[in-house]
Parts: sequence; structure tokens; C-alpha cells
Amino acid sequence: MRDFLPADKARRERVLAVIRERYRAHGFDEIETPVMEEYSRLHAGIGGDNEKLAYNVLKLGLDADAVRAAADDPSELTDLGLRYDLTVPLARFYASHRGELPTVFRSIQSAPVWRAERPQKGRYRQFVQCDIDIIGDASSRAEAELVVATLDTVDALGLDGATVRINDRRVLDWMLDRFGFAPDARPGVLITIDKLDKIGPQGVVAELLERAATHAAVDALEAFFIRPMTLEYNPYGERQIRKLLPADPPDEIVAHLVEIGEAVAAARRSAQDAAGEVPLVFDPFLVRGMGYYTGTIFELAHPSVEYSLGGGGRYDGMIGRFLGQEVPAVGFSIGFERIVDLVEAVEDAAAPAVVLVHDRDVPLGELLSLKAALVAEGSRVRLEQRTKNLKALLERAAADGYTAFATVGSATSRDGLEVKPLA
Amino acid sequence: MRDFLPADKARRERVLAVIRERYRAHGFDEIETPVMEEYSRLHAGIGGDNEKLAYNVLKLGLDADAVRAAADDPSELTDLGLRYDLTVPLARFYASHRGELPTVFRSIQSAPVWRAERPQKGRYRQFVQCDIDIIGDASSRAEAELVVATLDTVDALGLDGATVRINDRRVLDWMLDRFGFAPDARPGVLITIDKLDKIGPQGVVAELLERAATHAAVDALEAFFIRPMTLEYNPYGERQIRKLLPADPPDEIVAHLVEIGEAVAAARRSAQDAAGEVPLVFDPFLVRGMGYYTGTIFELAHPSVEYSLGGGGRYDGMIGRFLGQEVPAVGFSIGFERIVDLVEAVEDAAAPAVVLVHDRDVPLGELLSLKAALVAEGSRVRLEQRTKNLKALLERAAADGYTAFATVGSATSRDGLEVKPLA
Repeated sequence: MRDFLPADKARRERVLAVIRERYRAHGFDEIETPVMEEYSRLHAGIGGDNEKLAYNVLKLGLDADAVRAAADDPSELTDLGLRYDLTVPLARFYASHRGELPTVFRSIQSAPVWRAERPQKGRYRQFVQCDIDIIGDASSRAEAELVVATLDTVDALGLDGATVRINDRRVLDWMLDRFGFAPDARPGVLITIDKLDKIGPQGVVAELLERAATHAAVDALEAFFIRPMTLEYNPYGERQIRKLLPADPPDEIVAHLVEIGEAVAAARRSAQDAAGEVPLVFDPFLVRGMGYYTGTIFELAHPSVEYSLGGGGRYDGMIGRFLGQEVPAVGFSIGFERIVDLVEAVEDAAAPAVVLVHDRDVPLGELLSLKAALVAEGSRVRLEQRTKNLKALLERAAADGYTAFATVGSATSRDGLEVKPLA
Repeated sequence: MRDFLPADKARRERVLAVIRERYRAHGFDEIETPVMEEYSRLHAGIGGDNEKLAYNVLKLGLDADAVRAAADDPSELTDLGLRYDLTVPLARFYASHRGELPTVFRSIQSAPVWRAERPQKGRYRQFVQCDIDIIGDASSRAEAELVVATLDTVDALGLDGATVRINDRRVLDWMLDRFGFAPDARPGVLITIDKLDKIGPQGVVAELLERAATHAAVDALEAFFIRPMTLEYNPYGERQIRKLLPADPPDEIVAHLVEIGEAVAAARRSAQDAAGEVPLVFDPFLVRGMGYYTGTIFELAHPSVEYSLGGGGRYDGMIGRFLGQEVPAVGFSIGFERIVDLVEAVEDAAAPAVVLVHDRDVPLGELLSLKAALVAEGSRVRLEQRTKNLKALLERAAADGYTAFATVGSATSRDGLEVKPLA
């Protein structure tokens, strides 16, 4: 867990403001839920491995007997926990407020989540997630809106060259079926295939054999991995999708993936007045870890880093679990902490920032009067009492984002104030 | 704890944006600390009654033996807790990062805090506080900057007529000494005087006698309460301060209070180009509950409500406890939840917001292309598939803040799109 000092905090807030503003422009609405959720909801099995990483909050008013009685089941000591993602709270929120929300509800959540991860470089126990979700739309319109909004946001942050890798869990299931993996073996096989980027095709094959997967199925997968392929770049579309899959994939799923691509391409052309390449890549072996995905899955990639900058997918079953009724849902989550490290500089559109360096003997009323006049004119103003080392003082202010300074003596009036740029 | 739906969330974010922007203009810098702090720090005795209301987080990896061993001291089950205010984290933050901060450090924190309050109307277990603090300045400049920034912010929120009540803990101590209350009795006497607004002078006198306070001292206090006074409004200043106190108060404290008033008056005149009344009121019986205050104390009042909208004061001793060195500090905390309920309407300066009502058969690419064009032109855009009850759909969108709509058929181009105002 980290403290954020002024420069970091300002940078984070600027990046967050761009993300929220772009998402709002695309018709998404911000919501907020409490950071604590009921223990039972956080541990309902939909949080995957993250459930084990939840911070639990001690019940109020426990006495010695209650503590002793809970020794064999420490979950008795807690009834609330800190959320480990924003999807479980969203599902609970939607089930509670469905009647007050539009039929197709597009939500933005940008908020911290907590996971009791082992401390390591680049992993934090408190970190911010930015999620957009569309609930109530089963059509490819939902996926297309999410992808267009995400790409527009990434563009607005100056992260040129980002791509969205896309696949469909149903495609994976169909492929594994075709190779001959039994239905109950497939979740385990997916966990291994998810490591493809790290361990390569040979590693996947070796691990599957170790895990006692059916030999014939592993052979079929291996043959598919090493099939002769033209590696030239194919623009995203039906030809590419069919080429990268075994023969005769289900037409309905291919059509869904093609529709998303065509809509994203049309939106990009329209917004940018250009016919640039659509930054979508079909990846038949993209898995995304979470068990709750039921259809399309995405991952946001950027050429400057090997890890993904975000991801998401369709989870049509989850909302229904809290509501007792099937509700389609699809979401895209940006990894804010990774994005914020990559973004070079987001312009601070703020007003001029002036340091007023004053002598000790300037009457307080005159000093605050000068400050108030500059603030009223639209400046950001910091007072600094003059020190021997004026240069150090001004360097410090420049580092803090101040752009100009003026010195104030006991007889300085607003008109006599000379505001000079901080070099 | 509450969920915030889109309209509420948008309103809260707009109010928060005004507060943060105003505070930043006055030279304060935003910082952020983790929501969890070490248990020992949250229970170091500086949080007052709030310490008892802290939510504690269960230690990770407790086994049955550890739980049993903790039965007689449940604090053994926890090592972290959720912050119950922003002052304890600020003190910890400053002690950790002093070397990286300006000599006089002006911080903004706007963030949630948690208290396990009994549920009741208008009290929440998670609520937002907005604090500004100045660390490292013992002079009246610090108080004056806080008051000016707070009043400017309240003005910017359209809460006309707000006033800041002001007093000094040293004045209270001097008065109680003068009346004859022994030093060790004074903290208890202050707790009773703090109820003056609620129980009146008679109630205070009765409660003090019940609490076995020295009769002669209570008599002196009562005589002071009922002394003949001109109740006409006195502008804030030395005359008023001396008039409202027993004879011969310490000159140094009076001078400090007068300086604050003069500086605030000068700043207000300068900012508003007017010589309006300074919205400061000296209140010799203002106490503010927290035990850590050592000098000036404030409270923000508004004529439309009986409760205070915020408050603060000087707490020169607290930072030193984490740092082993005396550091002056003074803060002003706005009660965000109370303010947000009072603020009538903060203009949403956002772009035009357009609902695109489309027929079911509009090709997805064309639909997203139209949306992207409007977004690129600066609009906020929501897609809605046409339903039988178009009127209900448009009313819903208007309630959600949308200001215009256009209908999209399968042959609508950008040029053919007719955007009409809603309502």
C-alpha cells in the first residue's frame, strides 16, 4: 500500500479524469459502491482465486466466548470484507437497483480494490481499477461499444499503437471439443493454455501430458500449433478468424466476432476521418483467467510492454446469480496502475500557478489580499516566505508544478506585482 | 453504507470537483494515503472517541491456536484498521515524507473514512471528508489562509451566508482558570460547555454542579453567562473579542485572533472588490470536541441548518508525536456529506448529451459510426434501441442528464441526423 505525494497524486488524478471523461462521452454513467461488501457475497465462488486474497473485517463487539467459538472456523469472526474487484459489487448493485436503471445500463466504476498479495515489485495491496460494463445487451453492439470507448480512451492518453486481442470462450470450448478433450477436463486445459505466452506451445503440450490429459487430444492440439501458416499480417475479419481456427467453426460465433470488428472499424473511421487499420487482433488462444466468462473475451495490449493493460469479457451468468434471472453483461477493465506508469504526460490544463515569495515583514492582510486578487483572476497561488536560498525555493516550486513567481515586499501593490515565469 | 446511482454520483463528483479546484487554487496540494492504517497508530489515543468506532481488519493467515490465544484480547486478531478520520493518516504521512515536502506544506485530502456508528438517519458508516491542513506554519497566516480558502469554496458552491465561528482553546483555558476551575477539572468542564448550544446556560450550570465542579467557579461562569450585554451585532475585531470575554484576556491570543480577522477581511475585499461584512464570528464558548486542539478552533455554519458544516483548529502537538519533534499544524475539515445535501445545483459544464434512438435493423457499423462522429464533435452519446413507449424512454434520458435526442433509421447519415432538444 502506498502514499501518493502531490506530484504523483496530481498525475494520477489527471489520467483518471481523462479516462472518466472519455467513458462518459461514450454514454457510460459513473456509479459508486461501498468498499466493504458482505463476506458471503465476496465468497460466493465468482471471484475465483481473488476470494482467497480478500481482506476480512472483524465483526463488531466480539467477546471472548465468540472468539473462542470461532477458533475452528475463523470466517465466523468476520461478516464484511474489502472488495477485491469491481465486478462482484456491480452484480450486487445491479440486482439491488435494477428498477432505477436504464434497460441497457452502461456503468463506469473507477475505484480502489484490495488484495492481500504477497508484496512484490509492481503489485500493490490497494490499487485502482477502471471498469466499464454494459448490462442488459446480449448483442455484439455491447462488445463494440466497449472496445470503441476503450480505444478512444487509450488514444486520448497518448498511448498510440494499442491493440485489443479478442477471442470467444465458446470458440475455445469448441476447439477443445474438436481436439477431443472431455468437457470436465476443459477448465484445467484452459488454465494451461492461458500460459501459452509464457511457456510456449512446447510448454503447454508438456504440461498437459503431465496433467494426464488425453494423449490423442494433446496430439491434435500440438498438430494445430505447428500447422504450416502464412505469418503475414491479416487485417481483422472473417478471413483471418477462419484461417486461425480449425475448419468449420460455429458460424454464429464467427459472425458475432466479425460484427464487432466491422462496427469498431466503422466507428474508428468515422471518428478519425481516416481508414487506418483497426487495432483488433483475433487470438484463438486468448483465455483470460476468470471462470465466469461465457462469450467474447478481450485483452488490451501495448507494444511498449509485455503484460496486458486491461481486459474483460462477457459474463452472462453472473448477474443472474444475484437476481434469479438471466441478464447479459459484458465488461472491460483498464489496469489503471499500469496505464498511469506508461502515460508520458497528461497536460495539466489548469490555470497559471504562481509562487508569491514574501518578506517576513509584509503585513498579513496585504499578503492575503494579493493572493486573493491572483486567485480571483484565475491563478493557483502558493505563499512562500523568502529564505536565504531563493534559488532552491524556486526550484522546489517548479518541481511542484508552479510556472511563475513574484516577490512581495512590504509596499507591493497588485499593480506593482511583477509576475515572472519560473524558468 | 450507501450505493450511489448515476445522478447522485455525478452530483457528488461535481461538488467534489469544485471543492478540490478551489483548494488547489489557494495553493493546497492533493495527497492520498491508503485506507488502511496500522492498528497501533489508529489507537494511539489521538483519535478520541472515534478510536472505538474503527473497523478492524482480520490478520492474514490466523490458525485456530492463534484465534484461541486472542480470545481475551481480540485486538490480537487485527493489525490493520480502516481510518476513521484523515488527520491521523496525515500525521503519519507527514512524519514519513517530511523531507520530500515543502517547508510549509498545505495538503488537501478528500477521501472516505469509516466509523462503526449505530445506524441512524443522516449518519453513514462510510462517508467522505474534505480536509485542508497547513503543516509547518505557527503564524496566523496559516489560519487566515485556511479560512479564506474555505469561504471561497463555500461561495463557489453557492452557499451564500455561511459564517466561520472562531475561538482559541487557550482563551477557553484562560477563562476557566479565571473562573477558578482547577487544571485537571478543565477537560471535563469543556465537555459540558461543548453542549451549550443544545442545553443552554442553565443546562451547563446544572450539569457542572452535578459533576461536582467547584461551586465558586460554576457561580463565576454563571455570572458571566448572564452578564448584561448589548446583543447588537458587532463586526469581528478586537472590540468584539474583548467585549465577549472577561476583562484583560492575554494580549498575545487576542492579537492572533485579530490578525486572522484582518487578513481574512483584506482577502475578501480584494477578491470580491467589495467591502462586505467579514463572515467571521468570535464565539468564546466554541469548544470543538477533539482533545488534540491546542489553539485556534473554527466551525463552519450556515443559516439554513442548525448543525455545523465543518470545523477544525490548531493541533500543534500531534504531528510531533509521530516525529519526535514539535511541528505546528492547523486544519479545516468540510463535512462533505452535509454540504452535498445543501448545494442546490452545481452546473454540469459538460458537453451536450445526445440520445441516439435507433431502429432494431440499423446496421451496427452505421450506428457506431454515427455515435463516434458525435463523440468526436464533443458530445456525450447514449444509444437506445427504440421501444414502443418512446416518450418514457426520452423522459428517462432527460432524468439522466441528457439534453438532446435524434432518431436513427437504417438509412440515416451524419448529415441527415436531426438532433432535437429533449423536453
